[in-house]
Amino acid sequence: MKILLIGAGGTLGTSVHSTLAGRGHDVLTVGRSGGDLRHDFTDPAQITELYERAGRVDAVVSAAGDVPWKPITEMTAQDYLDAFRGKVLSQLELVRQGVGRIAERGSFTLITGVLAREPVPTGSAASMANGAVEAFVRAAAIEIAPQRVNAVSPTVFTESLDDYGAFFPGMEAVDLAKVARAFVRSVEGAQTGQVYVL
Amino acid sequence: MKILLIGAGGTLGTSVHSTLAGRGHDVLTVGRSGGDLRHDFTDPAQITELYERAGRVDAVVSAAGDVPWKPITEMTAQDYLDAFRGKVLSQLELVRQGVGRIAERGSFTLITGVLAREPVPTGSAASMANGAVEAFVRAAAIEIAPQRVNAVSPTVFTESLDDYGAFFPGMEAVDLAKVARAFVRSVEGAQTGQVYVL
Repeated sequence: MKILLIGAGGTLGTSVHSTLAGRGHDVLTVGRSGGDLRHDFTDPAQITELYERAGRVDAVVSAAGDVPWKPITEMTAQDYLDAFRGKVLSQLELVRQGVGRIAERGSFTLITGVLAREPVPTGSAASMANGAVEAFVRAAAIEIAPQRVNAVSPTVFTESLDDYGAFFPGMEAVDLAKVARAFVRSVEGAQTGQVYVL
Repeated sequence: MKILLIGAGGTLGTSVHSTLAGRGHDVLTVGRSGGDLRHDFTDPAQITELYERAGRVDAVVSAAGDVPWKPITEMTAQDYLDAFRGKVLSQLELVRQGVGRIAERGSFTLITGVLAREPVPTGSAASMANGAVEAFVRAAAIEIAPQRVNAVSPTVFTESLDDYGAFFPGMEAVDLAKVARAFVRSVEGAQTGQVYVL
């Protein structure tokens, strides 16, 4: 398959990239400052450009999303708007704009995370964003068939425990390889409207 | 208790108002075009004004939230932004700005809905908004204690079946009186971080 991978340069994106490429897929990487195509996918107009340049693809995979991390009392309305643009609208627009452009039975795979279910302090914007995308995936799935849309919702990565483990005390970590397999499940499988909780 | 009720003029707000007032609470109503205080709570600056005019309250109750209803292929990026401002940011700002202003053990009760879990066609913006608010409620609860925050997440109202029943085929309806009791449970009870699914 020809696969558009957004956020290919990140920790997760790198793993997803090598996993998908290793399975023989033709992966077109997209990043803000690196990759085959350079676009800021938090700008809906750049998503339009991205699809125009990419041409017909079979799957769109997102491993990107930025949100502010702060205590609620230090957040601003702009911080929540930034979280919405950085992880929600960006991924919704990949689907909305992609429906008419990707393959007839193509798929979208979005990234969310455990904070949708299990919050941590300073993570209110991340929780909001993940909850938004997961509910959207269920809703979009029933409208876009036979195209498909799923979300991958991992806990902290085993490989990131040194940096972020302190934020997730007692919570299970998940290996990047397992997360990458969930993307494979979404891209190569036939399910839709699923949130793969890892 | 002194309770600030946003969206007091709507179908749900009217029911919540009479239920809370009937239990002896002092309810200060807020609406865009009616009520004791007239503010558009989709504008964060007007929420600041609202809190300044309301003075110290014991509970903030939201029964308001507007989102666009359209097929995904007819939505625009602006529609999703409008949904975010109309039902998500508006309610998040009630909490964020309210934390420093309401009673020390005060509470926030927000409104979401069944589309967070069970989608219907044309409801992708509503699903997104409800999922966002429900995840935020879980996250905010662990930061703002001993203040509390919950969400009420009803299915279609029995009283609205004539108008909206066709959107929810085979789904159970819920009486407004039962929904209003969930607001009582949140306001007078001690729970926090809960999503009351009705």
